[in-house]
Amino acid sequence: MIVVMKRDATEVHLDALVARLEGRGCRAHISKGEEHTIVGVIGDVRALDREQIERMAGVERTMSVLRPFKLAGRAFQPEDTVVDVNGVKIGGDCVVVMAGPCAVESRKQVLETAHAVKEAGARILRGGAFKPRSSPYSFQGLGEEGLKILAEAREQTGLPIVTEVMDPQLVPLVATYTDILQIGARSMQNYALLHAVGEIHKPVLLKRGMMSTIEELLMAAEYILSHDNEDVLLCERGIRTFEPYTRNTLDLSAVPLLQQLSHLPVIVDPSHGTGKWELVAPLSRAAVAAGADGLIIEVHPRPEEALSDGAQSLKPKRFAELMHTIDPIAAAIGKSL
Amino acid sequence: MIVVMKRDATEVHLDALVARLEGRGCRAHISKGEEHTIVGVIGDVRALDREQIERMAGVERTMSVLRPFKLAGRAFQPEDTVVDVNGVKIGGDCVVVMAGPCAVESRKQVLETAHAVKEAGARILRGGAFKPRSSPYSFQGLGEEGLKILAEAREQTGLPIVTEVMDPQLVPLVATYTDILQIGARSMQNYALLHAVGEIHKPVLLKRGMMSTIEELLMAAEYILSHDNEDVLLCERGIRTFEPYTRNTLDLSAVPLLQQLSHLPVIVDPSHGTGKWELVAPLSRAAVAAGADGLIIEVHPRPEEALSDGAQSLKPKRFAELMHTIDPIAAAIGKSL
Amino acid sequence: MIVVMKRDATEVHLDALVARLEGRGCRAHISKGEEHTIVGVIGDVRALDREQIERMAGVERTMSVLRPFKLAGRAFQPEDTVVDVNGVKIGGDCVVVMAGPCAVESRKQVLETAHAVKEAGARILRGGAFKPRSSPYSFQGLGEEGLKILAEAREQTGLPIVTEVMDPQLVPLVATYTDILQIGARSMQNYALLHAVGEIHKPVLLKRGMMSTIEELLMAAEYILSHDNEDVLLCERGIRTFEPYTRNTLDLSAVPLLQQLSHLPVIVDPSHGTGKWELVAPLSRAAVAAGADGLIIEVHPRPEEALSDGAQSLKPKRFAELMHTIDPIAAAIGKSL
Amino acid sequence: MIVVMKRDATEVHLDALVARLEGRGCRAHISKGEEHTIVGVIGDVRALDREQIERMAGVERTMSVLRPFKLAGRAFQPEDTVVDVNGVKIGGDCVVVMAGPCAVESRKQVLETAHAVKEAGARILRGGAFKPRSSPYSFQGLGEEGLKILAEAREQTGLPIVTEVMDPQLVPLVATYTDILQIGARSMQNYALLHAVGEIHKPVLLKRGMMSTIEELLMAAEYILSHDNEDVLLCERGIRTFEPYTRNTLDLSAVPLLQQLSHLPVIVDPSHGTGKWELVAPLSRAAVAAGADGLIIEVHPRPEEALSDGAQSLKPKRFAELMHTIDPIAAAIGKSL
Repeated sequence: MIVVMKRDATEVHLDALVARLEGRGCRAHISKGEEHTIVGVIGDVRALDREQIERMAGVERTMSVLRPFKLAGRAFQPEDTVVDVNGVKIGGDCVVVMAGPCAVESRKQVLETAHAVKEAGARILRGGAFKPRSSPYSFQGLGEEGLKILAEAREQTGLPIVTEVMDPQLVPLVATYTDILQIGARSMQNYALLHAVGEIHKPVLLKRGMMSTIEELLMAAEYILSHDNEDVLLCERGIRTFEPYTRNTLDLSAVPLLQQLSHLPVIVDPSHGTGKWELVAPLSRAAVAAGADGLIIEVHPRPEEALSDGAQSLKPKRFAELMHTIDPIAAAIGKSL
Repeated sequence: MIVVMKRDATEVHLDALVARLEGRGCRAHISKGEEHTIVGVIGDVRALDREQIERMAGVERTMSVLRPFKLAGRAFQPEDTVVDVNGVKIGGDCVVVMAGPCAVESRKQVLETAHAVKEAGARILRGGAFKPRSSPYSFQGLGEEGLKILAEAREQTGLPIVTEVMDPQLVPLVATYTDILQIGARSMQNYALLHAVGEIHKPVLLKRGMMSTIEELLMAAEYILSHDNEDVLLCERGIRTFEPYTRNTLDLSAVPLLQQLSHLPVIVDPSHGTGKWELVAPLSRAAVAAGADGLIIEVHPRPEEALSDGAQSLKPKRFAELMHTIDPIAAAIGKSL
Repeated sequence: MIVVMKRDATEVHLDALVARLEGRGCRAHISKGEEHTIVGVIGDVRALDREQIERMAGVERTMSVLRPFKLAGRAFQPEDTVVDVNGVKIGGDCVVVMAGPCAVESRKQVLETAHAVKEAGARILRGGAFKPRSSPYSFQGLGEEGLKILAEAREQTGLPIVTEVMDPQLVPLVATYTDILQIGARSMQNYALLHAVGEIHKPVLLKRGMMSTIEELLMAAEYILSHDNEDVLLCERGIRTFEPYTRNTLDLSAVPLLQQLSHLPVIVDPSHGTGKWELVAPLSRAAVAAGADGLIIEVHPRPEEALSDGAQSLKPKRFAELMHTIDPIAAAIGKSL
Repeated sequence: MIVVMKRDATEVHLDALVARLEGRGCRAHISKGEEHTIVGVIGDVRALDREQIERMAGVERTMSVLRPFKLAGRAFQPEDTVVDVNGVKIGGDCVVVMAGPCAVESRKQVLETAHAVKEAGARILRGGAFKPRSSPYSFQGLGEEGLKILAEAREQTGLPIVTEVMDPQLVPLVATYTDILQIGARSMQNYALLHAVGEIHKPVLLKRGMMSTIEELLMAAEYILSHDNEDVLLCERGIRTFEPYTRNTLDLSAVPLLQQLSHLPVIVDPSHGTGKWELVAPLSRAAVAAGADGLIIEVHPRPEEALSDGAQSLKPKRFAELMHTIDPIAAAIGKSL
């Protein structure tokens, strides 16, 4: 941490700061510049509270040097994490495609979709049984009934499943059915939930909040990792900006950036990331070209009847076509589906 | 709802749309323009799913005419809601000031602050026992121990208390101690939590998410109201923008706008809304001038030792000075402290 | 400036950096921490290019300690700048209200408005003769004809006038008519234009770009000041965010923040800042309570016939009512209209 | 256009609205819903001013049905525009790469870079002679001297050149040297400049403002097209968001979206779009996979000595490597370099 003193800070202020820092086991390195004195803090800075320091007399502001995440960072673990989901390896040389309906609506819908996406090359089945909806009057999901349908689809197809959990109390229940626990964008900073999934031995797909920074995403991963669950998949799903023509702005720079900062695999969700089915195919291709370790795509047999997010769902036929065009792009960067 | 047809939409497309609308109990009103045909949908549009309609052949897009909130809206209840918190009335002619430390750190700290803010004119005591922190390594709050300290402060001062609850499971516990349940910004779309506080008969202070629109805030209130808890206080606490000099951008336009759209009282949090104690006083005055029904302000006896958010806390002396300057502004718009 | 070295930076990298810094007349102050070595740069850092330094081998990133503005800053000039516009002093104890139509449409409209706003207490007349419009098919303003109308209104009422200039070539022409040259939000980083108004001896009202930071606004002011025009008025007029219910999000925190960082007067535009006439009155009151040195408000005798921005214009009667309610708020913070 | 009436609107209000609409040559189509009456406006809506209508008594709000751009839209010209720059065709089956230094610094630097990027496969040389810089103390470019250096590089390599023009007065001068006139992000709504380049018969590379929507970009193109210059290249170069780890957020969804809405070619600038050279290669590949018609990339022989934007420039060797990896991705979607 760097502390920038005010222009008019006195020796008394500086001494008080140094005493405070040393009291927390850190050392101070003082540089007197022409306009400002700057104090470099050496030692375990994570024990200090920046905001406390900023309220000390004579202090103008502080600047953080270290990234605040640790277990999620490359410095802690240089080599890539590869998450094994019932034999499907995520984070290696394959681009793993997860596909399925936004919401589980019926047994027929899920089974039909599951077979179709498997045939097209998807390796994991997605589907929501508990749905976060901004209106209390919208369809909220089938609940445990939906989980059972997903489990049956897994039995029939062999595809592992990923489904969202929103309530910490329901983590054990959802974990008995699913292979990957999904934390939705709205829950990225639901610390009780992060804590709960951190204590389960199942991989977690952690979606970036729609207005969360990359650093906050890694700090949310840190919560899970610090509860000893090492299998976290990071998911870029679009952020909120001023642009109204898309539902979100898919931030593909996050893919190489996350891979640089962290050892965790990075998945991209072009369906929520754009909100428009016409954009899903080009952005899927772009995500793979940017180096994503996987994609999560909404597929629905009859999107015009979907109970949620129909506008961003592909029909199975279009999904199969998309898979064909992803293949050579993965190959172009030395990966395969 | 308005449905805009594509330029090349055919009669078959139009007929299918009309059939769908009528199947859901709505009527269609067709206007054939020079470039587009537009369909006005009449009836209970809340039963329709816009995204489904948008995936129908020949449909270009839909536009919403009705606001999606109902119980929170002025159309449902034209007169202002006044929330009574142990005799303190919020939503009438008074500007109610809530003050206290960000986090409960010790008995001494809370009692000292409680007496000071009461003397300065605060009507409600704030303090966090469960703290949402972006780092798992930061102070997470004293938990139930903190709630007990707050309760003791209430006993000594007579000030009702407001404190945050983050975990749906803990709602009953927190509700036994507190007078107002606070839903923090990061939890605004935690639907399990909204559901839980909706079933308690205690007022709820609902903070706007840092990435949430005014409409989403009202929809979150709708969740609570639809579970039969009518005492919701809306709280503007700053939104996330591109500006780095402040922690958040306090959106004071939200105050008159929320009051126009909704009957619920509107509280402003200038401490989180700016993140800098030097800005708390001018923005508090601005919030009152904009018509806020209340303020929630962080006060700490020794901000430079605070375990969270020290940089945005006022010392008791400055808080008392602020209260003196708010008074004539409240008077200028026909209100009082 | 602070330079943070990479974890794996070597002595060779460090030596090269020090040599580079010394070559530009600066000194390096090295702190070896446990994880990173940090280099404090002492001397005239403004001569260094951060981006160059960031591309040097072994360098992770740089952090700026000094604010990049100089002439606009309080360190350069601690006392407030007071701008004198034909005897109207902006930046002192008065809140100066500028009012008038968005666009000059006709002689009748302007004269009628000018007399009305003068009577209500406005001190300066606003009106646009050259209009920046996002569509080439919209009304673009009356041009010089409009300037003549404004000049006639000044003659009749004695009110100085403020009007926008968009084209550097037209600065001399506009300056012969107007008392204050307005730089619109879209032109805040039009450097040719900033250069041109910097060379004219007339006050400049510089509007913050709708997506410009406070620092960028001060850097734009710096351009004008560095061309020897000292009379710059800063204007907060709302920034672009994700919130759709308002046209812009008025950032009132910018008022005290700009006053802390800079000696220049700060004006608030609640008309563009909200885009809705119903919000203009409460936000005008809030701006004054936050300490603004002035307001610029759109007034139109018949907003429903206005050729631009009718939705945010007040009728003269409402404007007069607003002026009455601002008065006691200005008094509450020790100012007057 | 749709007009939504207030709940309490009367027949008198409705009649006045209809009279107004008919007075402008439009017809009104009235749908009386349960909560609101809605008026569909038929005819040449572009002649109406939405804001005027919104200020009429009884009107709640208006909604736009038509996109406001015309000449830039697919409805006006369904087939793709192909821009011919001295024989280099942009907008067809090739991905055209433009490369070169951010700023022209010296004859040696430009010639060295020009030869290197040509050898690597670039088809157009970029370089700035007039630089928009946020600080008046930064390097502002070599001016006409820089244009002469670029022209010499063209002579030596045969590569057409693209360079920015910022001042409307300088358009004729810059046009005598350059093959493509670049309008920078900060100038996207500089209407005097758009007007000036609209009257020159040279292709224009129009960069999206960092705070501009896709619709505003198309409206800026509309300004140029409406002055009879048909050769406009749209350029996505990143938008401003809350994310601090990248300089801008590159919005790749804009590529297929612009291609859907408009017939104009779409270029991507991954250098400004990310601000970090390490991200340029993956985002270049992503842009091509998303369907971009071209890329514009910063290349500098010694980025650590660059006078501007060194941190986002590639060295020639890395650029050549990048070109090799783009090739198969272009091939994967049926294009070539």
